[in-house]
Amino acid sequence: MIITLKKSTPKAEFDRLMDYLEGCNVRLNISYGDMFTVVGLVGDTTQISERKLEANEWVEHVQRVQAPYKLANRMFHPEDTIVDVGGVKIGAGEKIAIMAGPCAVESLEGLCEIAEEVKDAGASILRGGAYKPRTSPYSFQGLGYEGVMDLVEARKRTGLPTVSELMSVDKIDELAQNVDLIQIGARNMQNFDLLKAVGRINKPVMLKRGISASIEEWIMAAEYIMASGNPNVILCERGIKTFERMTRNTMDLAVIPIIKEKTHLPIVIDPSHATGDWKLIEPVALAAIAAGADGLMIEVHNHPEEALSDGSQSLKPEKFKELIVKARKVAEAVGREI
Amino acid sequence: MIITLKKSTPKAEFDRLMDYLEGCNVRLNISYGDMFTVVGLVGDTTQISERKLEANEWVEHVQRVQAPYKLANRMFHPEDTIVDVGGVKIGAGEKIAIMAGPCAVESLEGLCEIAEEVKDAGASILRGGAYKPRTSPYSFQGLGYEGVMDLVEARKRTGLPTVSELMSVDKIDELAQNVDLIQIGARNMQNFDLLKAVGRINKPVMLKRGISASIEEWIMAAEYIMASGNPNVILCERGIKTFERMTRNTMDLAVIPIIKEKTHLPIVIDPSHATGDWKLIEPVALAAIAAGADGLMIEVHNHPEEALSDGSQSLKPEKFKELIVKARKVAEAVGREI
Amino acid sequence: MIITLKKSTPKAEFDRLMDYLEGCNVRLNISYGDMFTVVGLVGDTTQISERKLEANEWVEHVQRVQAPYKLANRMFHPEDTIVDVGGVKIGAGEKIAIMAGPCAVESLEGLCEIAEEVKDAGASILRGGAYKPRTSPYSFQGLGYEGVMDLVEARKRTGLPTVSELMSVDKIDELAQNVDLIQIGARNMQNFDLLKAVGRINKPVMLKRGISASIEEWIMAAEYIMASGNPNVILCERGIKTFERMTRNTMDLAVIPIIKEKTHLPIVIDPSHATGDWKLIEPVALAAIAAGADGLMIEVHNHPEEALSDGSQSLKPEKFKELIVKARKVAEAVGREI
Amino acid sequence: MIITLKKSTPKAEFDRLMDYLEGCNVRLNISYGDMFTVVGLVGDTTQISERKLEANEWVEHVQRVQAPYKLANRMFHPEDTIVDVGGVKIGAGEKIAIMAGPCAVESLEGLCEIAEEVKDAGASILRGGAYKPRTSPYSFQGLGYEGVMDLVEARKRTGLPTVSELMSVDKIDELAQNVDLIQIGARNMQNFDLLKAVGRINKPVMLKRGISASIEEWIMAAEYIMASGNPNVILCERGIKTFERMTRNTMDLAVIPIIKEKTHLPIVIDPSHATGDWKLIEPVALAAIAAGADGLMIEVHNHPEEALSDGSQSLKPEKFKELIVKARKVAEAVGREI
Repeated sequence: MIITLKKSTPKAEFDRLMDYLEGCNVRLNISYGDMFTVVGLVGDTTQISERKLEANEWVEHVQRVQAPYKLANRMFHPEDTIVDVGGVKIGAGEKIAIMAGPCAVESLEGLCEIAEEVKDAGASILRGGAYKPRTSPYSFQGLGYEGVMDLVEARKRTGLPTVSELMSVDKIDELAQNVDLIQIGARNMQNFDLLKAVGRINKPVMLKRGISASIEEWIMAAEYIMASGNPNVILCERGIKTFERMTRNTMDLAVIPIIKEKTHLPIVIDPSHATGDWKLIEPVALAAIAAGADGLMIEVHNHPEEALSDGSQSLKPEKFKELIVKARKVAEAVGREI
Repeated sequence: MIITLKKSTPKAEFDRLMDYLEGCNVRLNISYGDMFTVVGLVGDTTQISERKLEANEWVEHVQRVQAPYKLANRMFHPEDTIVDVGGVKIGAGEKIAIMAGPCAVESLEGLCEIAEEVKDAGASILRGGAYKPRTSPYSFQGLGYEGVMDLVEARKRTGLPTVSELMSVDKIDELAQNVDLIQIGARNMQNFDLLKAVGRINKPVMLKRGISASIEEWIMAAEYIMASGNPNVILCERGIKTFERMTRNTMDLAVIPIIKEKTHLPIVIDPSHATGDWKLIEPVALAAIAAGADGLMIEVHNHPEEALSDGSQSLKPEKFKELIVKARKVAEAVGREI
Repeated sequence: MIITLKKSTPKAEFDRLMDYLEGCNVRLNISYGDMFTVVGLVGDTTQISERKLEANEWVEHVQRVQAPYKLANRMFHPEDTIVDVGGVKIGAGEKIAIMAGPCAVESLEGLCEIAEEVKDAGASILRGGAYKPRTSPYSFQGLGYEGVMDLVEARKRTGLPTVSELMSVDKIDELAQNVDLIQIGARNMQNFDLLKAVGRINKPVMLKRGISASIEEWIMAAEYIMASGNPNVILCERGIKTFERMTRNTMDLAVIPIIKEKTHLPIVIDPSHATGDWKLIEPVALAAIAAGADGLMIEVHNHPEEALSDGSQSLKPEKFKELIVKARKVAEAVGREI
Repeated sequence: MIITLKKSTPKAEFDRLMDYLEGCNVRLNISYGDMFTVVGLVGDTTQISERKLEANEWVEHVQRVQAPYKLANRMFHPEDTIVDVGGVKIGAGEKIAIMAGPCAVESLEGLCEIAEEVKDAGASILRGGAYKPRTSPYSFQGLGYEGVMDLVEARKRTGLPTVSELMSVDKIDELAQNVDLIQIGARNMQNFDLLKAVGRINKPVMLKRGISASIEEWIMAAEYIMASGNPNVILCERGIKTFERMTRNTMDLAVIPIIKEKTHLPIVIDPSHATGDWKLIEPVALAAIAAGADGLMIEVHNHPEEALSDGSQSLKPEKFKELIVKARKVAEAVGREI
């Protein structure tokens, strides 16, 4: 960490700050410039708050050199993490995981029908929301416990492991006991109580990026889960909010190599939410594979126009099959498999 | 709601969609254009999902004409709502409410000292975080229950009603019994389980705008609380995330007249979080009053450089006093009082 | 176009507006709702301004149904446009064009050395800036005319057609006579005098997307060029400005299928500017090809750390060669060639 | 400037970089940390490019300590600049300048009528666009020379100095000879040839902030004008592009104190473009004055619904008069005058 102090800092204030910093178990390197004095901190600075230092009126600027995360940091954990989701391994050079299924579970039969179709097409994990975060209180809020039980039955019939979203701490046992991968949605990425709660269990967790979270804030949210004891974290990008209105969100696929450089965690891409438009899912999915994604999450529905949630961003099963055929070719071109 | 259909829509698909819409208790007005057919829906459309309609491949575009919220909508509730916070009335032509205090409660004595100072300066409500949402798991997370008890004691000593943030459903009784106004923070603006929970009690709730929430999403979050039974909602703007890096967030004060036009709820401005920089608090606070804000929320700390959270955006008590003196003049200029 | 009028609109105002609209050569379809009156306009609405209608105090909302562009619109020109750049065809199913070279031309020998290397690796067009838009007046502003002459010489030696940026109208002849493709940079995307000027010549033009231009504004800028008489327009995406700070810009590859749906123009992707970081160029370039790009523009420099402009986003020639090898595989996987 | 180098930097590379830096006329302070080596540069670094240094593969990070601008920098020019526009002084403690008039000049009589009205209401400068940047090539592009002559005549009749936009270098003499203040619009904020051209004349220039320009980029654009010889620069904020769709743009009034801290230039606010909605102009204008603006620019039109450009964001003269009455009260409350 590098602290730039105003040249006009009174000696007493300067000394007081240096005493404080020395108490933080870091060594100090001080350079006296013409307009500023620059103090370099050497050692572990993850516990020192930039914003606290910035509150000092003599401090002009604080610059972090080391990332503020440790457990997620590739610098301290060079090998790729592989997460096992009900037998499906995700990360490193493993097969690219395809998570597919309806946005929301609507009925047991509908779910199982879609599950069979996506399995045939090549999906390895079944998705389906039982608890749904909806912008409007008047929209369908999910089947709840019944939806979770439908997922259990669909897994029994197809053998596919399942992923579903957890929205509140009081449902954590219900989901941990019944699904294979717990999803934390974009809107809850900084619901820190929820992050700590899933950090205390040992189910794998897929953490979606908040719609306006910086990459660093996203990694810090993963750090919350890991610091609470659960190392099985998968990151999932689903687009960020920008000024552009032709897509629901904007997805920068550069996050894939960035996440791989900064962390050792697997990264999954969700082209359904990123684009909000089924016509755009295929090109974005192929692009994600070319850029090195470890998995895809895609919404598939037999009758998108009748879906109770997000039909406009769901593929029909036959389109999904075509996508997987093409995705296999692109995966092969970059040395991966589906 | 206006639905634009492709000219090439097969008759069977068109009829099926019209049947569905007629079942939604709305009347239909159909215009046949050269390139598109346009269907106008007349009646209550709050329960109809645009995104579901957009999933229909023959639909080119869906445009909502009426807002998707009802309880918060000024159209159906023309008079301003006034919320009573422990005897302090907020909204309509009432005095502008000044909420001030430390970002986080750090100790009883520190809190009480600040509380006396802000009361002397003209604050009407004491703020202080007991449960703190922090980006890093390694940062101070708040005193929790002890902090809540400190707020109770500070209220006893100063008579100021209190506001504090609720982060999870399991602490709702603790806060509802001990503080006068429950704050839902920006990160939890779409934590729908939390919104429903505070909707089931009858304490006033201050709902902060999410850092990337559109104004409509923010009002929809208020609608969640109101639809669950609690009409005592105050909206609080604290800045949105943009590309600009010189301020922590970007605050468009145009939200003040917009919220007053679209809803009947009181609107409070938080210049501390909006700017992240104590030097900018005063001009933004004066601007908010000139634009018609019903209240301000300002962080005040005796020793910002030693604050455990967000010292850089806290005013010292003497600066706060100066601000209130100036704020009173601006309030008078626009026909309000502090 | 659909106009929503307030129910309270006085009859005289309503009639006046209807008269105006009938004078615009469109037919009107009027629906009377409970809260609003909706007027549908049938016919060519490209000359009618939404913002002018919105200025009418009785108008609640104006919704365009048809896009405001005609010449660039695929609806009126279903076949893909193919642009010929000095013999290299770009667009439709043609080979993916690889434009490569230094950010700025720095010397004849340096340019020719890089030109030979990128040609060997598989590039089909040589890029090099002679006039450089720089944020700081104290930065290198380009070699100007000398740089243009260096490009002429490099083309003579290698046979590669060239592309270079035009920044002002007074250099239009110089560039039109000496390079094969004129680039309009992101900062000048709405320099309308410049757009009209390149619309009056018949050299191909590559129009970069403005850093905060919506897709529609970008297409409208192309429409300016086409409406002035030049149909040879290539669109080039180079990332947009968002809150994310780990990349220079954010690039949503969903623009590729969107541009192909809305327009008939070729689309080229520039991963160098989009990411600002040479380590990210390869994955983003491969992703662009997978998503269907018609070309790539990549900065290549022999000694990036000594480049006078944007070295941090330039590839060394050997990295560029590796990229092309991989890119060919991905292109083949999606049925294209390089 | 502070450069952070990887610990693994080879000695030869390190020495080469230090040699280069010493050649830049700065002194070096080197700190050897456990994971990084930090080099502090002491002296004038405005000519050193961060991005060039970042291109060095051994460089982890570059942090500028001093701002990259000199002429606009308050650090080197502590007194406020006052710009004289045809006798109206703008900046420091001078009267708040009110620039008002139609978006575009449409006719001599219309212009003069509006000019008389805004003068009566308290405006000190007349605005009116003769050359108009329009998103669509099919929209009204301004009256051009005729519009400029109308401004000359309106000035003769009312005595109000005038401001109008310059869009291309070839009209610079026309505007410099006939108007009192040359406006550079948001779309041309980084049209560097145009900036250099207005830097070579000695008319005052009002530089609007680009719709996605950071505050630093905006100041650097002013630096271009000043570095070319013209110190008479006024900055004008007109809102930035964000995800919010209820306003045309988002305006953070925090720019007012920031510009005053970083530079010595006057700052004017344009609430018409910032909001795009006449109903929002008054509250935003009052807020701007409370926050310390040196001037306002407001669009006024006698018949907004018939305006050829941007009627929806224009005030009628009677609304403008009401606004000025209120604005005077707010100005007085913050110790200024109109």
